[in-house]
This record gives sequence, structure tokens and C-alpha cells, in this order.
Amino acid sequence: MASNSWKSNVILNVLSFLDYKTGKFIIAKSKRVGTLYRVIQLSIIGYLVGYVFLSKKSYQAKEESIQSAVITKLKGVAVTNTSESGRMVWGPVDYVIPPQGEAVFFIVTNFIETPNQKLGNCAESPGVLDGFCKIDEDCAEGESVKAGHGVRTGRCLRDNGKSSGTCEIYSWCPVESCHKPQDGHERMSMLREAENFTIYIKNFIRFPKFSFSKANIQDTDDKFHLKKCHYDELLEPYCPIFRLGDIVNQTGHSFQDMALKGGSIGILIGWNCDLDRDHSECQPRYTFTRIDVNGSSESSGFNFRHARRYKSDSGQIYRTQFKVYGIRINIIVHGMAGKFCIIPTVINIGSGLACIGGGAWFCDWILLYLMKKREFYKHWKFESVKKKDSNSPNITEHHNSPTEDTKQTPEEQQLTDLSTEF
Amino acid sequence: MASNSWKSNVILNVLSFLDYKTGKFIIAKSKRVGTLYRVIQLSIIGYLVGYVFLSKKSYQAKEESIQSAVITKLKGVAVTNTSESGRMVWGPVDYVIPPQGEAVFFIVTNFIETPNQKLGNCAESPGVLDGFCKIDEDCAEGESVKAGHGVRTGRCLRDNGKSSGTCEIYSWCPVESCHKPQDGHERMSMLREAENFTIYIKNFIRFPKFSFSKANIQDTDDKFHLKKCHYDELLEPYCPIFRLGDIVNQTGHSFQDMALKGGSIGILIGWNCDLDRDHSECQPRYTFTRIDVNGSSESSGFNFRHARRYKSDSGQIYRTQFKVYGIRINIIVHGMAGKFCIIPTVINIGSGLACIGGGAWFCDWILLYLMKKREFYKHWKFESVKKKDSNSPNITEHHNSPTEDTKQTPEEQQLTDLSTEF
Amino acid sequence: MASNSWKSNVILNVLSFLDYKTGKFIIAKSKRVGTLYRVIQLSIIGYLVGYVFLSKKSYQAKEESIQSAVITKLKGVAVTNTSESGRMVWGPVDYVIPPQGEAVFFIVTNFIETPNQKLGNCAESPGVLDGFCKIDEDCAEGESVKAGHGVRTGRCLRDNGKSSGTCEIYSWCPVESCHKPQDGHERMSMLREAENFTIYIKNFIRFPKFSFSKANIQDTDDKFHLKKCHYDELLEPYCPIFRLGDIVNQTGHSFQDMALKGGSIGILIGWNCDLDRDHSECQPRYTFTRIDVNGSSESSGFNFRHARRYKSDSGQIYRTQFKVYGIRINIIVHGMAGKFCIIPTVINIGSGLACIGGGAWFCDWILLYLMKKREFYKHWKFESVKKKDSNSPNITEHHNSPTEDTKQTPEEQQLTDLSTEF
Repeated sequence: MASNSWKSNVILNVLSFLDYKTGKFIIAKSKRVGTLYRVIQLSIIGYLVGYVFLSKKSYQAKEESIQSAVITKLKGVAVTNTSESGRMVWGPVDYVIPPQGEAVFFIVTNFIETPNQKLGNCAESPGVLDGFCKIDEDCAEGESVKAGHGVRTGRCLRDNGKSSGTCEIYSWCPVESCHKPQDGHERMSMLREAENFTIYIKNFIRFPKFSFSKANIQDTDDKFHLKKCHYDELLEPYCPIFRLGDIVNQTGHSFQDMALKGGSIGILIGWNCDLDRDHSECQPRYTFTRIDVNGSSESSGFNFRHARRYKSDSGQIYRTQFKVYGIRINIIVHGMAGKFCIIPTVINIGSGLACIGGGAWFCDWILLYLMKKREFYKHWKFESVKKKDSNSPNITEHHNSPTEDTKQTPEEQQLTDLSTEF
Repeated sequence: MASNSWKSNVILNVLSFLDYKTGKFIIAKSKRVGTLYRVIQLSIIGYLVGYVFLSKKSYQAKEESIQSAVITKLKGVAVTNTSESGRMVWGPVDYVIPPQGEAVFFIVTNFIETPNQKLGNCAESPGVLDGFCKIDEDCAEGESVKAGHGVRTGRCLRDNGKSSGTCEIYSWCPVESCHKPQDGHERMSMLREAENFTIYIKNFIRFPKFSFSKANIQDTDDKFHLKKCHYDELLEPYCPIFRLGDIVNQTGHSFQDMALKGGSIGILIGWNCDLDRDHSECQPRYTFTRIDVNGSSESSGFNFRHARRYKSDSGQIYRTQFKVYGIRINIIVHGMAGKFCIIPTVINIGSGLACIGGGAWFCDWILLYLMKKREFYKHWKFESVKKKDSNSPNITEHHNSPTEDTKQTPEEQQLTDLSTEF
Repeated sequence: MASNSWKSNVILNVLSFLDYKTGKFIIAKSKRVGTLYRVIQLSIIGYLVGYVFLSKKSYQAKEESIQSAVITKLKGVAVTNTSESGRMVWGPVDYVIPPQGEAVFFIVTNFIETPNQKLGNCAESPGVLDGFCKIDEDCAEGESVKAGHGVRTGRCLRDNGKSSGTCEIYSWCPVESCHKPQDGHERMSMLREAENFTIYIKNFIRFPKFSFSKANIQDTDDKFHLKKCHYDELLEPYCPIFRLGDIVNQTGHSFQDMALKGGSIGILIGWNCDLDRDHSECQPRYTFTRIDVNGSSESSGFNFRHARRYKSDSGQIYRTQFKVYGIRINIIVHGMAGKFCIIPTVINIGSGLACIGGGAWFCDWILLYLMKKREFYKHWKFESVKKKDSNSPNITEHHNSPTEDTKQTPEEQQLTDLSTEF
């Protein structure tokens, strides 16, 4: 090829770069396929607009990792009267463990007190399986009692006449009495007033991706209202002060049962924020669930032991051990924020359009392989470039092969008749 | 159709499977639409390359759920001098609650001490609204004082001559004096030296999806440097030792105010890691924010009460109650890791290409419905397959209908003239 | 144009809306490009089906923000014998800090006891650099000793004859002896039995997006089994009771070392749930890692101080300070749930199809710019709409320009010859 022709070629190519090239279409007057295609087209567009964008808001970038800080404060007083320590007043200082207002805390509603424990030898409590013995040999010295209170001294203590007893152990004596709190006269939990304790929850959240911060206490709220309001799902959905009794009831459990054996409750604070809307619409939703029951209630209940140590003037340490039953509150904050973002929008639109293209491909496939007139349509859709001397692609022999020409033409004729009748 | 023809048909289909079929295009010499199309094309490619990939790194799979473990250790000594307990030394053992180095902890900077409380009867503090009374009937026996310190005994205590007083309650007596810490001579917080306390933060993180772990303490750091360095945003951005005073200042609040009434501070540790880069580039960023002020400063301030119990040799329990004000530190770790992943890459490229296709559709629409020469273009773009005996699609009558032929041809003639003049 | 023609035009347009318009293709009998295209097509489809859907399950909506509540309970008894406080029994009450069964807790395995500390003046411990002095002037009164135990009184205490000593400080005296726990006879940690302590972990999780909840304790498990089983990676992968010794061993560290100097261990509970499967297949996986060692073991080890306060009958406060070394357990729950969702499915399919389209574009590019017969293919693919009076696009001069016709035709002729030889 001559170089000057190439030059012009280049120039013309540059020019023709701005020509608009658009695909050539053939109109297959098949109303069936046409309708099918339109249906596909419309259903995808409908899905895109109705479901993806309006319902699911997929035009938004989502943030699921929420930052949260929780401060809690309890109020309420209870009085107990026990044989061990007489009449006692319980304030938040006494019944909240730990006292420093964390997101996970424990409220004492019931307890077994074992006062004046001293280090020494005494009998393992009969409640401990591993503590039983018939003879001293059952109590190997120095071995600790499995799930027990101390280490064996080597002696087996039997009440006179009895054939079996429990090993003597070196431990904090006397060991805790193993009676369960629901035995006998103690069927009721001891801090009955716990039902009226109030929990004040301050929750501060932040969505780092959008650097959006909010608290569950509104700036606008008048402090006086905050002082006296109580959360109520319908009346006071945004009041951050909760009655313990209400919380337990909302989980569908009885307060007295729970107070007796203890339990673990989750206060879920959900923040679902559409940051395209006004920020004031981003509000917490509180839900309450008991998290220590999964089917079998046996595994439920919550208690732990702690001790207070004292020293006599003689310098000897003694302690009061408490086995406390109560309600463990677990404040779990979760949330999701969404804000318009171009990338997910383009992705959804783009893939939607591509699926419409896929629909077209599907319709082509029906047109060219299932329809009665498929050969005819194939013939029109596909133009063979083998020949040069044909006047028009339409009269070039069928693309499959020249050998068919003779067969083809009549067939096509008949197809055309059909098509005109159609 | 004869079966042998079918056979050849099949064979030829198999062969023609490897023929490359490409769409036939018409060149509409409309520079306007052509330019529009090129603009759309280029802008989408630019958006894809520049914004999606270079700026937003959307070729990466992202992980937002970071695993983190935090260990903290405080150093510093303060001395206080109070009427109640004289000169006292405060070490970390005394002012850090809880002491075991957690991610959420409290530093005492101020306190009200109420020593030698014993269980008994005394007057409710005048600070409690619900405690006021004029006559004994105002103090129903056994009822607990709302937001108060104990349960009413049924008597109303009035200083002689006064018409009103407060109910007598059974409680830990004497009840806490209600003077606020900022009254009178105590305008200053008590642990002034708290400003110089240092917090050593060890933070260990992990991105489970990429099983990538890191700590905020570099292996390379010489221990001696770690011992003496202090965090500074510019000079020492990676030193994990923080002066309490600096932290408060960075939140834009005055240390003395905060130390006086207490407050809650969040130390945000942000890990934004591009795991395609070298791991050493994955470094924490520390930011400090006060999280207990949202607009109204009334809701701010932080304090709680705790008590220390003692027993006299007579076995009677008495306690010292502390109402402690201080700074609650909340170490919040967040982060995001990204690593190249084929799926999001394909999704973004694919949807981008699809949008270019959408642009073509849009340009077609303009070409065929808005341009002056639309009929002419339609005629070329769409080839009717109704007729068989036409020499060429170009001369078949306009696709709309035969009835228009007569009208059409002159129109097209004229259009063509325009097009040639164009 | 006449209005009636417009009317009919409109009607016909409405009718022709249901005509199926499909792109016209030309068959370029280039087996090379055809094969390339098929390869691209198949590889994308293979990637989509095999990798995206089968392997990566990208047809699912994913949730990474898991809600979790953890309850822990320890069992085991240890005995220690120290000069300071003689023979002592350690139960969970004593060695678990804090005692209330949280997700982050500390197990005492070793300790230094400093009994009977009283507020007063004494010498700073020689272990503190900042405490050294030669003359009283080195001990400015009122200044606190950096990283020390108290505030200087202004005197420098020197053993007789010695040239240097340590400042006298006002502090809890005597100050803690600075001997490390691994010195001399104490090479072994004191709570050796800690190796056999057991940790019972209850973990309750929830995926808010799918409102799916589960616990690591199965409803079906018989309680008796739970009582006696021990976690074992192979035999008992779902038993929630862990031997402390096993945990440490699984991290690849020696228990005795760790018990001696302390350390921090992470128990990772991973929930990877395919919610399209049966819920019973959603099971936790436990992994154990030591999180306080990053390369340099110097930074490892974990300890903190706490004190127990007592009051003599004279009312003077004295305390016993414990520097406790031990194992800090950090239970970190992470997880991901996936459930079929139409949106990601459409996105992946759509973008896959679009990429196939991109492949076609790429093949076109090869066909039209790299192949020997490119001009010939261009000529067929692009149909110029400039002329009206041509019988067929195929014979219209080459789209580049009329000026080339003369040059073109022979060239094309020759190309055709090639193509027929091809």
C-alpha cells in the first residue's frame, strides 16, 4: 500500500473517530419474542428501581462497624434481713458490680452469705461429689477436691456411726453451705425492691466512615424531663432511663424467677441511620432479650462468688464470702449507616443494564433456535462476508453453507409466506 | 427437511461455532452524537480509573471487623490532704479503677470521702427532693426514698423551730454530705498531679479475613526509647505512652475543669491498612475526643461511688464511702484493611462497561428521536425483514409501514440532501 | 410533514414497540478471533460459576458485625506457701480478677506480697532510677519520684559510709521489694495447680441483619456430658470447658514461663455460618493465640498491682499490696454469616456478562486493527449511510472516504483472494 494513502488513511481515521457508530438492527416482526423481551426489560428495570434502589437503598455506601461508648448509672435502694448479718441497706454501691458504670454489669438480687471464714481444716461440703469418702485413703493428702473448696488433709470425717462422710480439707472454713437460694423460706429473692431499680444509659456512637456522631440523649431534651421519665416502648421510646422490672418483663420472663436464680439480659441498642435524611431521624431502638437461655433452661441462671476480707487486731485474716445471684446486664450496641455513594449506584445500574443485555441474548437464542422461522431469522441476522460479488447480503446463500442454497430458497419462500400471514 | 441435510446442518453448526460473529454497525456521520458518545465513554473510563480504582481503591476486598486486644498501664503519684483522712499518697493501685489494665478504665482526680458509715438511723440529706417532710406522715415507714440513701423509718426530723425537715431513714449513717466538689475552698480538684500521669497503651489487632496481625509497639523500637518517649502528634506519632494532660488538651477541654467534675474521653485508635503495600506502612492513628458532651454540657461530668468495708473487733461492719470524680478513658479501636481481590475488580469494570453500553443506548435514543435526520437514521439502523424480494435493505420501504413509502421517499431524499450538505 | 402521516406514525410506533429488534451480525470466518472470543467467553463463565459462586459464594449477602455476649466461670483450687502470709488456699474468688465472669479476665499465677503498708516516710526502693541521691539537694521536697512510689521529703537516706542512697519519700511504707519473681528460690510460679484450672465459656451470638441467634452450648447436649468434658481440637471440638494448661500449650508457649512472668492470651471464637444450610452446621471454632508477644519477647509479660485495705481499731489504715503476675484471657468473638440475596447475585452475573461484552469489543479491536484482512472486515462491519443510491452497502466505496475507492477496490479484491485461499 502506498505511504500517501496511509497518511490520508490516518487523517481520515482521526476524523472518523467522531463519527457515531451504532449497531444495525433487524426488525423481527415476532410479537411473541418482542413481548418477552419487553417483559424482561421492564421487570429488570422494575427490580432495579423498586427493589434495589427504593426498598434496599443500594445507592448508599453502608457502614456496619459502629463505635460506641456506654455509661450506666443505677438508682434505687433495697433492704434485706438475714440471720447472718441482720438488717442491711443495699445502695448502688453495694449491689452494682463493678460500680464504675460500665456497659456490662451485674445487679445483685439474691445472695448466700458465709461470714467469718478463716483458713483452716474442716469438712468438705456434702454438695461436692469428689469430696465423699468412706476411709482416710479416699482422701489423698494434698490433693485438691475437684470442683471443691480446698485440698485434702488426708482424713475422712464421718459423723459418728455413719459409714461415709466427706474428706477433711484445708480451706476457708466454714465452707459455703450448699443450700440453694430457693430452698425453704428463701423461695423469694432477697432484694425484692430490685424490680424498681432504674438504669440510666448514656450511649455515644460514631460511624467513622462518615465521621457522624450522636448520643441517645438529645441536646434538646430538657433535663427535668430526663430526670423523671421512664422508658416505654410506645410512650417514651427515647427516654434513656429503664426500670429493671420492665426490662425483664419485656424479655418475657418473670422477674422473681430471674431475681432468684439470676440471669443474663442483653439490652440491644440499634442505630439504623439513613444519613441522606436529617440527622434528627437517626434514633436508637432499644430491644431486650434474655441471652442465657437457649432451649434448655438448665443452662440458665447466673451467679458468682466474691469475698470481703478483714483483719483481726491479732493480724489474722478472715473474710465474708458472698455467692451472689442476680441480673447481668449486657448492653450491646449495633447499627448501620448508609449515605449516597456513586460507586454502588453505578455498580447496580451497570449490572442491571448488563442483565437486560443478557435478556436480549436469551431472546435471540429463542428466536434463532426455538421459533419455527429460526432459519429465516438466522439468515437475516447473520450476514456472511465470504462473497464479494453479491448484490446484497440478503441474497447470498444461507450462512451455513452453499450446499443448502437450493434447499434454502424454497424453504425461506415458504417461511416468508408464513411470516406475511403471521 | 431431509435428514442428511440435517446432518450436514449439525456438522456445519459445530464448525461455524468458531466463526467470529461481530455486530454490524452503521456509521452515522453525526459529529454531535458521536462527540457526545465519546464524552460519555471517556468520562466513564475516567471515573473508573481515576475515582473508583486510584482514589477509592475499589479493586480491593475490604475488611471492617477488626479484632483487638488492649492492655493499659498507668504511672504517676499524687498526694492529697483532706480533713477526713489527712495526707494521702495515691498510686495507680489507688486511682485506677479497675486496676487490671483494661481498655475501659477510670482515673480518680477528685473525690468526696464519707468515713465511718455505720448502719443505723439518721436524717436523709437535704439534697434529696423526695426526703423533705413537714410531719411524720410524710415519711411512710419502710418506703425507700426515691434517689435517696435509705428507707424511711416513719419519723420526720426537724431542727427545733423549723417547720420542715427531712425524713429519718435507715441507712449507712452519716449519709454523704451533698456539697459539690466545686464548692468553697475545693474549687481545685484534689489530685492535681493527675495531669502528669502517663498511660501506656498496648494494642494488638488482627484482621481475620486476611489473617493479618500487628501491634502498636514495633519490634524494631528500642526498649529504652519506649521507656522515655511521650506521644506527640507530630514528633512522636507512634509512641504508645500518653500524658493524661495532653490527652485532655487534645480534646479541646481544660484539664482542671474535667478533673473537677469528671468526664469521659475516647481514645480512638484507627488502623487503615492497605495490605497490598508493605506491612510496615500499616500504622495506628490516635485521635482523642470527649464523648460525654453532646451540645448541652449539663449532661457531662462523670462520677460514681464505691465503698471500702472494715470490721471492728466487735465484729460490727463500718465503711468509708468515696464519691469519686475523674476521667474515664475509653479506648476504642477501629480499622479497615483492603487487599486486592478479583471479584470487586471485575464487578467495577463490568458495571462500568455496561454503563458505556447504556451511554450508547442513550445516544441511539437521541439519534433516533431528537435529531432532525432521525427518520433517515432509523431507516438505516433498522432493517425490516418483511420482504424477501428486495435487492437490498436500503431500498426496502421505510420500516414503519408500506403506506408511508410515497411520503417517505421524497422526505428521505431531502434528508439525504441535508446529510450531504451536513 | 402532514399531521395525518404523524398520526399513523405514532400508531405504528406504538405497534412496532412490540417488534423484536435484534442486532445484525456479520460472520467473520476468522477461526483465530472466533476461538479467542470463545475462550474469553468460557473463561469468564467459568470464573463466574466456579470461583465467584461455588467457591466464594458471592450470591450471598454477608454480615460481618456479630453481636456477642460472653459469660465465663472458673473452677480449681491452688495452695501457696509464702513467708509473708503462710499457707493460703486460692479459689476462683481469690485468683480471678474481676470475679464476675466477664469476657476479659485475669488469673493470678504468681504474686509478690507486701503486707502491712502504712502511710509514712521511708526510703525509695533502689530499683527506681529517679530515686537515687548523693545529697539531700537531690531530693527536692514535695516532688514525686518518677515511676516511683511516693513524694520526696527532702532527705537523702544513705547507709552509713555509703556515698549514695535513695531519697526518703512519703508513701505506703515499706515500699514493695523490687526482687523479680524469678529470682532465687522462686524460679517456679506459686500457683502451680493453675495449669489444671478449667474455664467454662458460654458464648451467645446474634447476626442482627439475619436476626439469627445461637450459643456455643447446644440444646441437645446432655448436661452430664457438659459437666465432665474438656475441649480437645479433635475429640471434643465443641466442648466449652477449657483446661488452662491446654490453652497455653496450644499457643505454643510453656505454661511455667507464662505463669511466672504473666502473659496475655486471646481465645478467638470464630462463627462462620452459611445460613442457606441447616442452622446446626453453624458451629464455633476455637483458636488460641498469645497476643502480648510481637517479635521482641521483652514487651511480653503481664502484671498489675492491687491492694487490700484494713483498719486497726485505732482507726489507722494499713494495706497489703499484691503485685500479681498471671494470665490474662481475652475472649474475642468474630464471625461472618452469609445468606442468599438477589442483589449481589445480579451484580455478579451482570458484571460478568458485561465483561463478556468487553471481550467482544477486544476481539473486534483485534479483528479490525491487527488482522491482515482488517480493511476487508472494517468494510463489512461498518456500513456508511452517506449514500442513498447504492444498491448495497457492500458495494458502496470504503467507509474511509470516496477518494480511496480506486486504490481500495484492487486492494479489497486481493484481500478477498486471500480470504478465499484462507
